[in-house]
Amino acid sequence: MITLTSDFGTPYPAAMKGVILQRTDTRLVDVAHDLPRQDVRSAAFWLREVLPYFPLATHLVVVDPGVGTDRNALVVRAGDHVLVGPDNGVLLPAARRLADDVDLEEYVVDETRLEAPDAARSIPSATDAGPASNTFHGRDVFAPAAAKAHEVGPDALETLSVLEPATEYVSLDLPEPTLSANRAVGEILVVDDFGNAITNVPGSFLEDRERITLDGETVPVGETFASVPVGDRLATVGSHGYVELDVNQGRGDEAFGLEVGDEVVLETAD
Amino acid sequence: MITLTSDFGTPYPAAMKGVILQRTDTRLVDVAHDLPRQDVRSAAFWLREVLPYFPLATHLVVVDPGVGTDRNALVVRAGDHVLVGPDNGVLLPAARRLADDVDLEEYVVDETRLEAPDAARSIPSATDAGPASNTFHGRDVFAPAAAKAHEVGPDALETLSVLEPATEYVSLDLPEPTLSANRAVGEILVVDDFGNAITNVPGSFLEDRERITLDGETVPVGETFASVPVGDRLATVGSHGYVELDVNQGRGDEAFGLEVGDEVVLETAD
Amino acid sequence: MITLTSDFGTPYPAAMKGVILQRTDTRLVDVAHDLPRQDVRSAAFWLREVLPYFPLATHLVVVDPGVGTDRNALVVRAGDHVLVGPDNGVLLPAARRLADDVDLEEYVVDETRLEAPDAARSIPSATDAGPASNTFHGRDVFAPAAAKAHEVGPDALETLSVLEPATEYVSLDLPEPTLSANRAVGEILVVDDFGNAITNVPGSFLEDRERITLDGETVPVGETFASVPVGDRLATVGSHGYVELDVNQGRGDEAFGLEVGDEVVLETAD
Repeated sequence: MITLTSDFGTPYPAAMKGVILQRTDTRLVDVAHDLPRQDVRSAAFWLREVLPYFPLATHLVVVDPGVGTDRNALVVRAGDHVLVGPDNGVLLPAARRLADDVDLEEYVVDETRLEAPDAARSIPSATDAGPASNTFHGRDVFAPAAAKAHEVGPDALETLSVLEPATEYVSLDLPEPTLSANRAVGEILVVDDFGNAITNVPGSFLEDRERITLDGETVPVGETFASVPVGDRLATVGSHGYVELDVNQGRGDEAFGLEVGDEVVLETAD
Repeated sequence: MITLTSDFGTPYPAAMKGVILQRTDTRLVDVAHDLPRQDVRSAAFWLREVLPYFPLATHLVVVDPGVGTDRNALVVRAGDHVLVGPDNGVLLPAARRLADDVDLEEYVVDETRLEAPDAARSIPSATDAGPASNTFHGRDVFAPAAAKAHEVGPDALETLSVLEPATEYVSLDLPEPTLSANRAVGEILVVDDFGNAITNVPGSFLEDRERITLDGETVPVGETFASVPVGDRLATVGSHGYVELDVNQGRGDEAFGLEVGDEVVLETAD
Repeated sequence: MITLTSDFGTPYPAAMKGVILQRTDTRLVDVAHDLPRQDVRSAAFWLREVLPYFPLATHLVVVDPGVGTDRNALVVRAGDHVLVGPDNGVLLPAARRLADDVDLEEYVVDETRLEAPDAARSIPSATDAGPASNTFHGRDVFAPAAAKAHEVGPDALETLSVLEPATEYVSLDLPEPTLSANRAVGEILVVDDFGNAITNVPGSFLEDRERITLDGETVPVGETFASVPVGDRLATVGSHGYVELDVNQGRGDEAFGLEVGDEVVLETAD
């Protein structure tokens, strides 16, 4: 099984699928292709929260603002999972979660040894340096690399001639909140498609609370969206286990005026 | 085969897929994940119109404004099909269509007996009441239930320890029009992605008509979009068999000023 | 393998999938279902650029402004690939690319001999002329035809009773640029989801150039998006091999004020 995640919209993901299906007939599963454009941190969050629900798989990830520069293509073994994507940190939070922070191995793709997709060989942009385009490494580099990694599996990545152990790579840590018994200073990590503003404050901060203050303003705490009237605001523990600022059947980001990256100060109000 | 339908956008459907694929390697087919948010009736319409084209399958449906409340999770056997989703009526119109109104059985999921997804066990929101989050039953309840229902199939649902026969459940009937020979009082059931405003008036009302009036205004009747010039309005029989108010290569909802739920009065104009 | 391409949004593609899966259990792969509405030329471009990356497959394409008129349903054999869609030219550029302009055969679907989908038989719009709706040939004509074509494969299309050799069909050529050593007069073929404005000028026009003029205005040439600061404009060779007018991490169409169909005059500026 190979999962695919990108910020490509359509139809570019289909080209990646074609390239993979030229090489393997394994199952393909889309995670998302409409992640926020060029937003490495949001993608890292979603991968960390979604990939652990999957059985063993190779995970192809392309959120890649640096496409065409000399940033490497990275392959990470995380336990029995393999992640393939740009060396910009996007793979690391998910890899650490999948492997419980152990059993991690990082490899760099030697692009000059990678067999590029058939159809790409004749495109005008192919150069002496290799057959890859400069703008679509998802198709020309990451998809072939993912197919190769899938073929040998996590235990034999070191046998692939296109991979070399990574001597260094870009790490990425999602920000941690500052917590005390009655106060949490955190940040909006992502806003989901429903408009729920998801913080990095663990849900336990809301335990046994009926209300909190957000930046000084009182907000009711609810176990479910429906604990407040339709259209009303609430703080709740979202499905990822973090405090979310939501609206019952509405958009929390708009109601609270919150965006990704905004600091939030939560305080107990009892 | 398991089909998936929701109003989730992305990437939440991927978490449901991972959970299912931990339990079965059957084919997964997306029906839609961008249905109108929290709109049970629209979802019920689309399921009723689309699912009958599928071969035998388990159909996972999550349009669930009451997530986290004490509304039940429902499993409905409809002939050789099985539908799994919230007990808010969304499954019923499709189930009745699939089973020709007979051979229907309804079960309630005993969530305390359901094995929650592995990755969910450690989330901070899990409580003594069970391992499910309060905001994402698609992942924590419906997906595991659908995998279980798929595993045993429609003829053995009663053998599942997580299911109990439903003594009562929420029904839902899509509204019926008031029809006479020359007059139909109906309603806009849904607006599709093209902007076609789909009524609940059967297409036979347009038979042998060249024009009708809509709320007093004359509208040409066409067998095809192209029977009127590009940009012009028409009434036609849509692919579901109902009268639609459309624009050739344009949006009927905007041109007619119609929204879901609006009453429409159609009269013969000949 | 059957690929699916349309401008349908959702959930109409699911009905096509159900119809196909009633007839075959082959793999289904979505190319895109959100192509620009009714835009035959854009769809033809994307198919030509994406389908060559796929292994042997049947390609179902429905971008069909003339649905319900007497335009034919076309089946094209292109080497080992088969394309199925409306006879409006949309299949031809991809077919020629897939078959290197040789080994092409065109067939017309005899719709009266096509077995319509089960669930469609009872819809009110079915007429004596046949069981197909007038507005959804993707479900009622093209999907069944694609399943049949897939079943027999490219070498036996002539054995299908529902196909007749096409004596004529609609062709379509994407526009060609006018090129000299220092000047290219081209056109914006498509704007992709990133906002990249993709011309029909071959990338070789940028070779060894550091800047060009676009309609008289100087634009830097970059090998990668990142060769200019974030937010800056550039001309580059896109992944299809054509000159694109882009913005690093932004939308080229907006920054350059360009739309599909606009003429562009590129001149060397050195």
